[in-house]
Amino acid sequence: MPALRTGLRSAVILLSGGLDSAVALYLAREQDYRLHALSFDYGQRHCRELKSAEAVADEAGAIWRAVKISLPWGGSALTDEKVAVPTPRPAEKMRQEIPVTYVPARNTIFLSFAASWAEVVGAGAIFIGANSIDFSGYPDCRPEYFEHFHELIRAGTRAGTLGRAPEIAAPLVNMTKADIVREGQRLGVPFEITWSCYRGGEAPCENCEACALRARGFEEAGIADPLVTRSVASR
Amino acid sequence: MPALRTGLRSAVILLSGGLDSAVALYLAREQDYRLHALSFDYGQRHCRELKSAEAVADEAGAIWRAVKISLPWGGSALTDEKVAVPTPRPAEKMRQEIPVTYVPARNTIFLSFAASWAEVVGAGAIFIGANSIDFSGYPDCRPEYFEHFHELIRAGTRAGTLGRAPEIAAPLVNMTKADIVREGQRLGVPFEITWSCYRGGEAPCENCEACALRARGFEEAGIADPLVTRSVASR
Repeated sequence: MPALRTGLRSAVILLSGGLDSAVALYLAREQDYRLHALSFDYGQRHCRELKSAEAVADEAGAIWRAVKISLPWGGSALTDEKVAVPTPRPAEKMRQEIPVTYVPARNTIFLSFAASWAEVVGAGAIFIGANSIDFSGYPDCRPEYFEHFHELIRAGTRAGTLGRAPEIAAPLVNMTKADIVREGQRLGVPFEITWSCYRGGEAPCENCEACALRARGFEEAGIADPLVTRSVASR
Repeated sequence: MPALRTGLRSAVILLSGGLDSAVALYLAREQDYRLHALSFDYGQRHCRELKSAEAVADEAGAIWRAVKISLPWGGSALTDEKVAVPTPRPAEKMRQEIPVTYVPARNTIFLSFAASWAEVVGAGAIFIGANSIDFSGYPDCRPEYFEHFHELIRAGTRAGTLGRAPEIAAPLVNMTKADIVREGQRLGVPFEITWSCYRGGEAPCENCEACALRARGFEEAGIADPLVTRSVASR
């Protein structure tokens, strides 16, 4: 395991174990932050991604915490056994409607825990790998949403009242999936230990929206996805 | 146990088991909401309040859920064994500084779960018993903070994008503790099963800030606190 990185300033990075949040972590790393990577076990079907999150955090030299939370009211295909994971929708439809994989208020919940940890370690930034271009139509992945969250913690935390509310950094928000893949390659992100698939099998299903978005990103970037290569090779 | 109340509109009410949130619950009840009471087990010292929350919810005819969350980074006397619960401070000091019982981003975390449940049940309001008069100096108990939270879920939830973001109702925010006690009496709030003390013994310690605020509220309202009476009697 690489040594913990010691930066002058701290950042909390929301780390799902997927491609985007891994790139966000490595962008924070490049900016010499002391890295605090935060993951959630929220009963998601694809809890395999948690193992990826821990591996990516270790690789990047981040302190890693996983917070277990329950969402006993269901309401999403990612947490509710009764709702099926959908197959990919046309890009046009993706931009227009919120899918069943939407978890009500998920990023608000995630960011609020990040704000709590950020306050305890005096972090100057919270990084989130959200993306509003090649995205799944989630309202809590848009720039105006992150601005509102910053205003919220400016008003509602001790750090905020002292003028030290962390910025909400969403560096991927206007990037295409191909841009994200290219950026990840530039930064040396270990793609092979990330996990994007909404289902939780041994290998990516290559049939869900997350797999489809990832595949298109690698394809458009002209880079082979080592995860898929490895999975195909090991079948 | 009283029957569940069936209102036309739903509300989610943050219910700690203390005096203020019980009064907020009964205000929502008076407004004929279908009641969804939400409590948290966050490793607080005074987890005895959870039993009070369940009892108050039952008494009010509310659906009750307790969400277990961890805050592994500590940072508060309420969750961190290493930080002592302080004795009461002068009122002037209370208004000026944030005490060690402040839990970083606590209301943001609580409200984000409430927003999630609210979205699933289509709630029109989220009630919170926060108070900015006889309060402990927490920045996340002020009216402007709640306005920011409403803006956040207007931008960041499916309900919000459809113009149905729940309002954040903080009906006690400008009331004195004495007003809250009087309002509770008018509404028939079962004071005797609420719990305010920051410590978790059999009876309130009557020495912490929460006990002191509660005692002053009852005293100024000219109403006897049945919890203290009972506790003293049973010693």
